[in-house]
Amino acid sequence: MIERIHTSARASKIVKHNGTIYLTGQVAEGASVTVQTQGILAKIEALLEDAGSDTSHMLQATIWLADISDFQEMNAVWDAWVPEGYAPARACGEAKLARDILKVEIIVTAAVKVL
Amino acid sequence: MIERIHTSARASKIVKHNGTIYLTGQVAEGASVTVQTQGILAKIEALLEDAGSDTSHMLQATIWLADISDFQEMNAVWDAWVPEGYAPARACGEAKLARDILKVEIIVTAAVKVL
Amino acid sequence: MIERIHTSARASKIVKHNGTIYLTGQVAEGASVTVQTQGILAKIEALLEDAGSDTSHMLQATIWLADISDFQEMNAVWDAWVPEGYAPARACGEAKLARDILKVEIIVTAAVKVL
Repeated sequence: MIERIHTSARASKIVKHNGTIYLTGQVAEGASVTVQTQGILAKIEALLEDAGSDTSHMLQATIWLADISDFQEMNAVWDAWVPEGYAPARACGEAKLARDILKVEIIVTAAVKVL
Repeated sequence: MIERIHTSARASKIVKHNGTIYLTGQVAEGASVTVQTQGILAKIEALLEDAGSDTSHMLQATIWLADISDFQEMNAVWDAWVPEGYAPARACGEAKLARDILKVEIIVTAAVKVL
Repeated sequence: MIERIHTSARASKIVKHNGTIYLTGQVAEGASVTVQTQGILAKIEALLEDAGSDTSHMLQATIWLADISDFQEMNAVWDAWVPEGYAPARACGEAKLARDILKVEIIVTAAVKVL
């Protein structure tokens, strides 16, 4: 009834239950907010595919920025990436992240694709 | 299977899936925490109505305060607003928000009303 | 259709809907991150039991640390506590909490046990 994929002692990158997919918060290294955001969104795309879903099935996204002044730079990448007409519910606030070099973390909930 | 309402390139204010409603984090302008919280809760009420739900069907609320010392002032408005006996699961922490003037953001998940 | 347990004017510690369980963010007093995390995880275990679930049915966990430099100390307790093979999706960021003495808050979503 619960399916887990890419599971470690700490977290499962994907948890599926009742048609809903919960992804572990994704981060990516990179010298700029743009590069990190691009890396994160590529990881989310890959995880959604592993989970039997895609970017047109996102339900909710929570975005943490280590420095909220990076809001516009992150949004430029985000807005271009979201499939037109399929944007999830979203919230974005400032939170320092697990490692000093990390500038962005994105937590996505999505729906399983129905064939 | 997924219904989106008030959708832009960045976010949908409402996403419905499998009987659950995800709202985009709500903020409101205003000179005080009280005024902003009142504005936010009015917006949430309106969005829940648009989504076919109401404040007695909230499941989870996450509250971000730009300054955690506003906890009591926000709570006074929140506690009076929640329908007695129908409070959602809740969490509240400090996070700076997208614009300097914003003091409060509230993210709500709710259930669709069953007729 | 929605079941609430331990409900006050502010929050329900448990909300159940459609097979999913939403817990209010849990905190615990204690002199160290280790002691607080242990206290929180014990509370979560008790709430999951009250909700008809257990730690092998967690879907998602969001962890807020008042000081992100406590990441490793919190993780040591968390990693040992999660049942092997059953880790939820997870995210961890820094957020100051409702009272100065609180160092950790954990928000869990879980699935109802199916008999």
